[in-house]
Amino acid sequence: MWLYLLALLVFYFLCRWYRERQTVKNLTEKYVFITGCDSGFGNQLARQLDTRGIRVLSACLTQKGADDLKKATSGRLKTTILDVTSTESIAAATEWVKESVGDKGLWGLVNNAGVGSPLTPNEWLTKEDFENVIRVNLLGLIDVTLHMLPLVRRARGRVVNMASMLGRLAFFGGGYCPSKYGVEAFSDSLRRELIPFGVQVSIIEPGGFATSIGQNIKERLKSIWNQASSDVKEAYGQQCFEKCREVTQDTHLQMEKKMVCTG
Amino acid sequence: MWLYLLALLVFYFLCRWYRERQTVKNLTEKYVFITGCDSGFGNQLARQLDTRGIRVLSACLTQKGADDLKKATSGRLKTTILDVTSTESIAAATEWVKESVGDKGLWGLVNNAGVGSPLTPNEWLTKEDFENVIRVNLLGLIDVTLHMLPLVRRARGRVVNMASMLGRLAFFGGGYCPSKYGVEAFSDSLRRELIPFGVQVSIIEPGGFATSIGQNIKERLKSIWNQASSDVKEAYGQQCFEKCREVTQDTHLQMEKKMVCTG
Repeated sequence: MWLYLLALLVFYFLCRWYRERQTVKNLTEKYVFITGCDSGFGNQLARQLDTRGIRVLSACLTQKGADDLKKATSGRLKTTILDVTSTESIAAATEWVKESVGDKGLWGLVNNAGVGSPLTPNEWLTKEDFENVIRVNLLGLIDVTLHMLPLVRRARGRVVNMASMLGRLAFFGGGYCPSKYGVEAFSDSLRRELIPFGVQVSIIEPGGFATSIGQNIKERLKSIWNQASSDVKEAYGQQCFEKCREVTQDTHLQMEKKMVCTG
Repeated sequence: MWLYLLALLVFYFLCRWYRERQTVKNLTEKYVFITGCDSGFGNQLARQLDTRGIRVLSACLTQKGADDLKKATSGRLKTTILDVTSTESIAAATEWVKESVGDKGLWGLVNNAGVGSPLTPNEWLTKEDFENVIRVNLLGLIDVTLHMLPLVRRARGRVVNMASMLGRLAFFGGGYCPSKYGVEAFSDSLRRELIPFGVQVSIIEPGGFATSIGQNIKERLKSIWNQASSDVKEAYGQQCFEKCREVTQDTHLQMEKKMVCTG
């Protein structure tokens, strides 16, 4: 009996050891396209994959972001300008990727571009506030994916979509949580559809990180409160706004501390 | 021991009996605003609440829908025309509701208006296909809610949002599942925000029902396939389209049968 258990345990650890020593071969011949490389996760990923020898195709929203990234990386890494809310811009980027990868196809598509929204109750906002976030985080991600899929299919590659823990739990109001819930839905149906083509779809669900997604969030919170209707201001009160500002500030400080800790 | 168990059981049934005989008082003085009353759930609900004596304010997309509903109901029920994708139309409907309810406020807001999408893989679609569904099912619902909330708060009422079982499991591609996932996120954060105001937020997650949301779905499926790129047509093949059409037809037949069974 004990011998069987021991044999099973050894077998389990052998399998695990074997699986974990598998590494992807020929990294220098693989192409990965990443959106939102100006800063944050996209920027970090582009730099890291570049040091591993992967052929990184980085899409930035701004020319400054692209220039800074180019300066900090090897000659292999290429950049382009991409606004994920514009189908024309996506079509142009797709042509650029197609020319870059040639017959090899796209081994990886990382949909990272996204915007945040301040920690406010829903009622302080307008439809436009929701729309602006959904247009980037959800519809932009979908549009980029639909354009790039033929190239990913050719390489039997993978799609990695940036969701969030806020795609499972709606902690606060505004468009961010609905957009990330939507990313979860899109990614899950896409994952099942692409299995027959040998294409994998994964999501990443980060917690709180002090990336530039939180930039100017206190100022944006203040301008939202200033624009709220008098009815809303009366119902929630100045005290509620002060509390929101405090929570935003605390959350930011916590995230910045965490960033220092995790390097 | 057995006596304790018996006492506990009796106590449980007494509590249940007491809870279930609670009914809402003064129904004839309560106002409920329902969107999407042309057909389906919205139409059924408007008729049922009208027979119970509630003051129903029905929003229809078409004049014909409004006329038909008026003919089938009492003089208490009022109708208006509303396109939930237009903020101007929502603002006009809000003014109309405000005038109708006076100081009483809105006891119930039922966000029912929605559109469906055919059972297709994501890759057959364009960004516009996703956008058209999200604009009605998610952004329209949010916009109506934001406009009506001051009236709901006045009556310490309730908001009922039409989600779907497809707001928890993304069975197929297109904008429907992401839009309903988004409704779940919005409703959950709203629910917590409105507790201090004595306003309740609920969601309904129906399974498959043969409402008019599935109208012309086979024709729409065909036109989507016809418009798909040659690359997509080659990858998926005519056989896959035939299978999709078959599944759509079967699902519809199943839903129609169910409708007959449940009356």
